[in-house]
Amino acid sequence: MTLPTLLVLDADPLPRLGRLTGRVRVEHADASTLAGLLPAADVLLVWDFASHAVREAWPGEGPRPRWVHTASAGVDHLLCPELAVSDTVVTNARGIFDRPIAEYVAALVLALAKDLPRTLALQRERTWRHRESRKVAGTRAVVVGSGPIGRAVSGTLTALGVTTALVGRTARAGVHGPDDLDRLLARADWVIAAAPLTSSTRGMFDARRFGVMQPSAHFVNVGRGQLVVQDALAQALRRRWIAGAALDVFETEPLAPDSPLWDLPGLVVSPHMSGDTVGWRDELGEQFVELYELWAAGRPLPNVVDKQRGYVPGH
Amino acid sequence: MTLPTLLVLDADPLPRLGRLTGRVRVEHADASTLAGLLPAADVLLVWDFASHAVREAWPGEGPRPRWVHTASAGVDHLLCPELAVSDTVVTNARGIFDRPIAEYVAALVLALAKDLPRTLALQRERTWRHRESRKVAGTRAVVVGSGPIGRAVSGTLTALGVTTALVGRTARAGVHGPDDLDRLLARADWVIAAAPLTSSTRGMFDARRFGVMQPSAHFVNVGRGQLVVQDALAQALRRRWIAGAALDVFETEPLAPDSPLWDLPGLVVSPHMSGDTVGWRDELGEQFVELYELWAAGRPLPNVVDKQRGYVPGH
Repeated sequence: MTLPTLLVLDADPLPRLGRLTGRVRVEHADASTLAGLLPAADVLLVWDFASHAVREAWPGEGPRPRWVHTASAGVDHLLCPELAVSDTVVTNARGIFDRPIAEYVAALVLALAKDLPRTLALQRERTWRHRESRKVAGTRAVVVGSGPIGRAVSGTLTALGVTTALVGRTARAGVHGPDDLDRLLARADWVIAAAPLTSSTRGMFDARRFGVMQPSAHFVNVGRGQLVVQDALAQALRRRWIAGAALDVFETEPLAPDSPLWDLPGLVVSPHMSGDTVGWRDELGEQFVELYELWAAGRPLPNVVDKQRGYVPGH
Repeated sequence: MTLPTLLVLDADPLPRLGRLTGRVRVEHADASTLAGLLPAADVLLVWDFASHAVREAWPGEGPRPRWVHTASAGVDHLLCPELAVSDTVVTNARGIFDRPIAEYVAALVLALAKDLPRTLALQRERTWRHRESRKVAGTRAVVVGSGPIGRAVSGTLTALGVTTALVGRTARAGVHGPDDLDRLLARADWVIAAAPLTSSTRGMFDARRFGVMQPSAHFVNVGRGQLVVQDALAQALRRRWIAGAALDVFETEPLAPDSPLWDLPGLVVSPHMSGDTVGWRDELGEQFVELYELWAAGRPLPNVVDKQRGYVPGH
């Protein structure tokens, strides 16, 4: 009996794959070897989720893995037209990042409301300067993205007394459709981007949308950098169209040392870390092993991505 | 008919006292004039709650106001033995600061868990450095102080998934007594000081108690500076007995520019602002007017301080 071949896109060893020992033949690929190894692989595990190698290696003739799993919530880095129309099943790490990202957003919202960045700057100058800060309870947030991450963000903000509106691709119970977005933005204190990157969300936060927001509003992006027109955000901050922003994701990562974003007034820059709490790689490894057990038993997989829409359809 | 005399300890004009126009004669005092004006006052409003002038002016012979209200939660700045044994009723601003301080503590806990101070430092250096952060849900907090502020802190942390224990002066339903403190400290991730300053809480966070805490623990003080032996905290941080701390209150305020606390490793210094959200002075003024209406009508006052214990006894 031939063992299935599991191709792992990552040179590093993986936690938690030991449970599959003897049941699968593991090969490792990097961007330069992926195209050559794809035809012989039954399963592709995209462990290096920052890589775009799949999108580059996939096109072309020949056999392809029947299943691709990515250790990330977003799938924008791997979907290409050829993969989208193929029979290959794509799954993601739905569920792992929800709570950590919700906490991260809450940390930013509270830190901005309490003016913590300024407090830390004054501390460096040994300056005691009392200021009034904002009460978070009773403020309004709009969370764009109604998947598990957006819902977790909404739940955490609601627990802090923030009146929160969720905006998704289509209106449904508890979720506003895109038609409501501008009206909600116009009265939001906090605008949270937690949407997948798709053709309909790319660049959705542009100059017009920042212009709709209140001068007292803060913008937080924990989705994907390309949801935002970075120049428009820079302009909105410089001209004080909005009060501040926090970005954890960027068009190009890592952010270049000479990017003007590093010292934009009122902008907090963090290095795409919102979902990555201690133990996250173990959790991602365990999740893949659980999915592999199902796949090997011929049972249906959870977390299956709608390759046309670019995310796992949910409630 | 003679109007009652309301003596206000503060040179600044007060918001919201307009409602009392024509019903009270308002005089203003500062530290140098207070002793001379006390005998003729019916009511003393301690608006400058950072002042110790009451404690210094009160002792001595003669008539004294029948009611003293302080626009603060703590009463440590005004209680002196002569006031404590007198018939004068003391009330405080119970209720105004609960939610803001709870949010402030949540902001610090989340910011420390997510390593936000380091993120901001790396941003200044234009350095992209991904780190793993801590999940807050599932961690343990001890909140020392079981009054409205401590309970609000506990409620907010609980809403974030933190397992929270309240410690008060006496054990009762939902509140641990002092005997449980060391055991709780030994397994806490977050230790929050939110107690009034009394003879039994002064200096309670000393070298021994910091030694009991876990090396991964963080300490937050939003109560009074004198709850903490500052040198012991400094030593605990330098020796890495605990992972970090945030102080909003200090033995001496404002903190002197040459204080070693400003650049202690792992310490966040803020200028006694945790409870002061936009509109707080209006709220304090409105609260006093409401109490004045009751007092003028001869009705019982809420928020009456137990002058022996040094706080408003509660549930």
